[in-house]
Amino acid sequence: MLSWVDGRPSEQLSVKDRGLAYGDGLFETIAVREGAPTLLDRHLARLADGCARLCLPFDAPLLRGELQAFSRQLGEGVVKLILTRGDGLRGYAPPQPTMVRRILQGSPKPTYPTQHAELGVRLFPCTTRLAEQPLLAGMKHLNRLEQVLARSEWQDSEHAEGLMQDGAGRVIEGVFSNLFLVKGGALLTPDLSRCGVAGVMRAELLAQAETLGVSCEVGDFGLDALLDADEVFLCNSLYGVWPVRALLHRDWSVGPLTRKLQAIACDLLDC
Amino acid sequence: MLSWVDGRPSEQLSVKDRGLAYGDGLFETIAVREGAPTLLDRHLARLADGCARLCLPFDAPLLRGELQAFSRQLGEGVVKLILTRGDGLRGYAPPQPTMVRRILQGSPKPTYPTQHAELGVRLFPCTTRLAEQPLLAGMKHLNRLEQVLARSEWQDSEHAEGLMQDGAGRVIEGVFSNLFLVKGGALLTPDLSRCGVAGVMRAELLAQAETLGVSCEVGDFGLDALLDADEVFLCNSLYGVWPVRALLHRDWSVGPLTRKLQAIACDLLDC
Repeated sequence: MLSWVDGRPSEQLSVKDRGLAYGDGLFETIAVREGAPTLLDRHLARLADGCARLCLPFDAPLLRGELQAFSRQLGEGVVKLILTRGDGLRGYAPPQPTMVRRILQGSPKPTYPTQHAELGVRLFPCTTRLAEQPLLAGMKHLNRLEQVLARSEWQDSEHAEGLMQDGAGRVIEGVFSNLFLVKGGALLTPDLSRCGVAGVMRAELLAQAETLGVSCEVGDFGLDALLDADEVFLCNSLYGVWPVRALLHRDWSVGPLTRKLQAIACDLLDC
Repeated sequence: MLSWVDGRPSEQLSVKDRGLAYGDGLFETIAVREGAPTLLDRHLARLADGCARLCLPFDAPLLRGELQAFSRQLGEGVVKLILTRGDGLRGYAPPQPTMVRRILQGSPKPTYPTQHAELGVRLFPCTTRLAEQPLLAGMKHLNRLEQVLARSEWQDSEHAEGLMQDGAGRVIEGVFSNLFLVKGGALLTPDLSRCGVAGVMRAELLAQAETLGVSCEVGDFGLDALLDADEVFLCNSLYGVWPVRALLHRDWSVGPLTRKLQAIACDLLDC
């Protein structure tokens, strides 16, 4: 597959890279349609925020241009951008000056079973808990062992995603998705200031719901609130929206607000 | 510098490596003296434990042989071993079967100011808190953004190390060291079952102290307990033991148990 390192075709990088050594970097996975990256402004905005918080230099025009050029070559599929703090010497201290490394990897458009979007998915209740770390919460950084452990908890194809909670039992997100509840016509989604990844599609759907005049609440919700919700759905910037049809003893049918937001996501992702 | 990937000289690795993508792996940094890795059994034991917890295949004879061969070539210095879950496709699910990747990097023997060992070091009080994640605690895994953030908190050379606490205020470790207190002749060190890295030198010193008949306690200690200690010292498997001579308003002189354990560490590391 197509792969660039620092703007040049390459499938290799230096073993000294701090992304490898410490997970010292960030990433974005972006759907590419007809040679263009989707939701690019939102992906770049999240990346800019992450870079500011990790004190990584952020060159928006360079990244935008490179993502666009790469997407033109890819045509259809997914581009994954990894930004790292570049090569390091020994030790945790960030090198001065920092030479950020850019890694772009292309992959084919993922093929999910159509019933995930149409009928909804069954959520696996992960026992892996997300640790509370406000300094890293919300960012799509490269320290993802919690997700690796959580995704290892089930192998069957009956469960398309897993539910992750924090140590206090709050529901936070899916392993590779964000989580929304609908209750009494309002849209609810977990606060991600202690842990979790603030997804680009989550931000987009919150903005779209506000435009539709739907009441939105970002807050703390326990498993009881989730099981008590009228509708539950997941989202990310590759598949759009998946209704949740089952978790533990609870079943849901696909609700109207889920379908409305799913249609909006589908338009954006051309799915 | 000397660098091997999967047993062959190379300074590059695949951009698909899950060590880069997710920090999905472990590492060890080992002092090499006269062509041999020091404390090798303890390093391999910690790695075996980490591999078991992350469900990574562990081939002890292969790793031992490779570390010994690499060290013979290096002569003097430090060998860093990184083990990753190898190349991945997209997504967090571990590939089956897993082809573990082995990366060995050599570097020169680090040169620390001699007064660190002789007179002791001043500890910087980091504000970065370690998140509590029992599933990852103790392991030397590749998710090290907390250490990167903590080490970024000071630039001056007055502070040789930083003190890290957890969210509840317990003292846990240094940024790249473990922490010991001496109180009433007993050796105390923080419990690392919620967060922190269980260092090889820490394990060695606990074993040596027991042999000396010193009472040892692994437990929870707040900042007050640290400031109230008779002696405080740091250790790791590269520099051995550094006495702590100052933290916040508190000064210490170097105590007798610190000196005794420092001498033992020096013997092991030939420093």
